[in-house]
Amino acid sequence: MKRWNNVAIIGVGLLGGSIGLALLERGLARSVTGIGRRAASLRKARQRGAVTSTTTQLARGVADAELIVVCTPVESIVQHTLLAAASCPGGLITDVGSTKSSIVNAVDRQLNRFPRPRATYVGSHPLAGSEKTGAQHARPDLFEGRVVVVTPSRHTPAAARDSIETFWKSVGAVLVRKSPQEHDRAVATISHLPHLVAAALAATARADELPLVGGGWLDTTRVAGGDVELWRQILSDNRRHVLNSLSKFERVLAGCRRALESNDGKKLSQLLQRGKCNRDAVGD
Amino acid sequence: MKRWNNVAIIGVGLLGGSIGLALLERGLARSVTGIGRRAASLRKARQRGAVTSTTTQLARGVADAELIVVCTPVESIVQHTLLAAASCPGGLITDVGSTKSSIVNAVDRQLNRFPRPRATYVGSHPLAGSEKTGAQHARPDLFEGRVVVVTPSRHTPAAARDSIETFWKSVGAVLVRKSPQEHDRAVATISHLPHLVAAALAATARADELPLVGGGWLDTTRVAGGDVELWRQILSDNRRHVLNSLSKFERVLAGCRRALESNDGKKLSQLLQRGKCNRDAVGD
Repeated sequence: MKRWNNVAIIGVGLLGGSIGLALLERGLARSVTGIGRRAASLRKARQRGAVTSTTTQLARGVADAELIVVCTPVESIVQHTLLAAASCPGGLITDVGSTKSSIVNAVDRQLNRFPRPRATYVGSHPLAGSEKTGAQHARPDLFEGRVVVVTPSRHTPAAARDSIETFWKSVGAVLVRKSPQEHDRAVATISHLPHLVAAALAATARADELPLVGGGWLDTTRVAGGDVELWRQILSDNRRHVLNSLSKFERVLAGCRRALESNDGKKLSQLLQRGKCNRDAVGD
Repeated sequence: MKRWNNVAIIGVGLLGGSIGLALLERGLARSVTGIGRRAASLRKARQRGAVTSTTTQLARGVADAELIVVCTPVESIVQHTLLAAASCPGGLITDVGSTKSSIVNAVDRQLNRFPRPRATYVGSHPLAGSEKTGAQHARPDLFEGRVVVVTPSRHTPAAARDSIETFWKSVGAVLVRKSPQEHDRAVATISHLPHLVAAALAATARADELPLVGGGWLDTTRVAGGDVELWRQILSDNRRHVLNSLSKFERVLAGCRRALESNDGKKLSQLLQRGKCNRDAVGD
């Protein structure tokens, strides 16, 4: 397994902190620099043992890094990636953004104008988020057995793509390779739509009904407790695919409505069975 | 705490089995009779230690019971309650059905025609189900800290209501008292709608997208793995309230759609925030 001299992590929340912990606990990096805007977050990451040094100066923090992982909210990733590329021309950069097309396109387009030698960028998306945020919830095994989608574009050198895939495997992830567009279409249905639906479901309950919630409601709405601004950015950025997935969902739900309205038990069973088949195919 | 001489449980699946386990492990019942149609289910319950004896003969099984708990699917509860009442005139009967109005109304109406002394019935609904079914998943602590709604009607004697409430408290439950109608309206939003939505969400995913599922999809769709026929019965029986809850949900979701279509970040944040507020109010 490759051992990195220095890895810089921009944004040391749940994902960034967990990457640092995984690298250090597995002896995969000699040092990990945590970069952030807020001293309090950096302190938390250091206390958690997720980084070996911290700085609020992005340019200084990435200067000596072999690998830079951008773990900031979706709307900041392009800017942080380009700033890192400008300060670390030899660096290999990836990110953990939940959307990929707009980020990969923007980075590719602008990175192409940088003078050579220039940094290399490969988009990633670990499907390992949580409604919990902050380095205090970071775990060295967060990526263990979890899917990470790597999204090379036609501008991505194969060697850089392979290095990033090896990096994710080294922290325990299961690799899936997709184009940025394929990625965005799939996660719209599998991640972004469930978030929107969970939030809408949680918002539908009245305060006087909440004392009655059981395990079903708690599971079904869990992700609605996630950070509102992070998810606003994700849903906005991927809204074209999310709207398509929402249309598909609305059609299924309209079928459920018709089955209930006409008290068509057979049809209702078929719809429930379709959901159960998909759910059972995945397990826990 | 009251100690029962004999408790009869009709239907020894997850809920029935867990009631038996809780009673026996806490020393709350001297004996527990498991009643069911299938020898295999009865054997599982006995192996799990959830019952002390079993029978496929309902009349014989309930004859000596002080307390009878009907744990069969929603559409069988009225019939089993009336059969039990006919065979155990002094008995106190409750059930665990997820819907209450139609069951309580039907039992009340028909029980009133029985000669005195006649059995007493009080409706209950423990919000402690799971996508897992069968006595092999029964747990003595299934009701610990979980809400049980007890739904007395104007025909319910106060003493019987109190006995049933004491029974549920003795196995660790948190009591909520509601009329059958109030109960059905609340659980439509808090339990039945989430099931329908989870099933629709799971059904929306395409097979080639399933390898990408992460914790969000797994949580949001978990209940969709539940027993199709049990849930078909629940949703059909409570369809009037479920359709009302579905309308409310569709309105919230339509707001999400408009916010995405117009890329109105502020509106989208407000909708996500409404969901988060309700979710955070409940915790885990």
